[in-house]
Amino acid sequence: MPRYRLTLEYDGRPFQGWQAQANGPSVQATLEAAIAAFAGETVRVHGAGRTDTGVHALGQVAHVDLGRAWPAGTAQNALNAHLAGKGVVVLRAQAVDGGFHARFSAIGRRYVYTILNRRAPCALDAGRVWHVPRPLDAELMHEAAQALVGRHDFTSFRSAACQAMSPVKTLDRLCVTRQGETIHIEAAARSFLHHQVRNMVGSLRLVGEGRWPVDGMARALAARDRAAAGPTAPPDGLYLVGVAYPGEGAP
Amino acid sequence: MPRYRLTLEYDGRPFQGWQAQANGPSVQATLEAAIAAFAGETVRVHGAGRTDTGVHALGQVAHVDLGRAWPAGTAQNALNAHLAGKGVVVLRAQAVDGGFHARFSAIGRRYVYTILNRRAPCALDAGRVWHVPRPLDAELMHEAAQALVGRHDFTSFRSAACQAMSPVKTLDRLCVTRQGETIHIEAAARSFLHHQVRNMVGSLRLVGEGRWPVDGMARALAARDRAAAGPTAPPDGLYLVGVAYPGEGAP
Repeated sequence: MPRYRLTLEYDGRPFQGWQAQANGPSVQATLEAAIAAFAGETVRVHGAGRTDTGVHALGQVAHVDLGRAWPAGTAQNALNAHLAGKGVVVLRAQAVDGGFHARFSAIGRRYVYTILNRRAPCALDAGRVWHVPRPLDAELMHEAAQALVGRHDFTSFRSAACQAMSPVKTLDRLCVTRQGETIHIEAAARSFLHHQVRNMVGSLRLVGEGRWPVDGMARALAARDRAAAGPTAPPDGLYLVGVAYPGEGAP
Repeated sequence: MPRYRLTLEYDGRPFQGWQAQANGPSVQATLEAAIAAFAGETVRVHGAGRTDTGVHALGQVAHVDLGRAWPAGTAQNALNAHLAGKGVVVLRAQAVDGGFHARFSAIGRRYVYTILNRRAPCALDAGRVWHVPRPLDAELMHEAAQALVGRHDFTSFRSAACQAMSPVKTLDRLCVTRQGETIHIEAAARSFLHHQVRNMVGSLRLVGEGRWPVDGMARALAARDRAAAGPTAPPDGLYLVGVAYPGEGAP
């Protein structure tokens, strides 16, 4: 059966996350419905990352097997027509080898978390950023973040619901940069624990506000205790930006 | 009576434009309702620019007279509390001299129009950008745009409903720049005719797609005929970015 790789952009707000759920719309089920409408087939779409409720994507990757070999551009246009107004768009569709698996073949994931750091709340970007009214020192946040880069036990930044076998992960990048009122926190790793990015961001905020010292991140990490780290940042500011596969550039 | 200058950000989507209307919510009426809830006064808010239905603002300026002298920060916070979730935010409130008038004192307005130029439609920025699927040559658009800079009769780019006394305006800047898939068109002038920015953008698109030659803008301008210019671009991509007043920097 021909396999297709789909690169996806979506707005997390209308969805109960990536994964198909009984209790609300999901990105996965929305895509599967569009495929059924276009190709007349009931199929399962596999995603590289199971984004949570309210988390957005600029470059999620998924794959699906179809019974018939459609030209990739035809499939993309037909899917986008069926997805119109639903908050999901197929940025790219490619025919791929049957050995490609969106999740298991992935060797890197990149997320960006966006904070709007100003006193006034947000009008235009409500649901798209985390509004933090107190001034944040982005340089200090970046400095503190470097303690998390590398291979560590991330128990302190892992949600209680996390199903990963091990809390040990290798964080490749954690960069904090400011552009005017906006702070971007970029996180890259082969894979992440459940809520890891949002929990790291929630702690970095405490450093940025001066409530934690610059070595607070290192201390929280060393504690291997969720209670030692900061609260979970809301999903609003989180974007899955890209997924890397062998033989390709950085995501 | 104490006069306050308010700098505003708003999402144009929920509103029938700036001006209070009988047939739908407006930014002006939403602000006036928030002021009534906070200060217990029924007042008129005056805006620098009467943005149309669906047009956004990052820096609209308005003024209002209140019966009582509130500290500006108190007024800002109280207004933002009453505006929560309504798509309008007060970025700044300042007590100003009674001679200040948001509209009549203004000496410059700056708009930015945003085009998403890619084949795939938009998921995250629907209603916030104009999606143009055919490739646009932004450098050619910029070159063509320069023919409109200066003092001209803009009849070709003026809506039939425009109530301005004269079609002659001085356009200070019209800059087209590309950042990846996004094209920004920045327009600055003391004031604009009704739909002028959207009509200029609608014509620039034709240049960018190669359907008009690079001197097409100059020709359309010289015709002094609305039928000689391109169609009106949608409101989705238009942002009122700032308003300039005497003795202050560029907006």
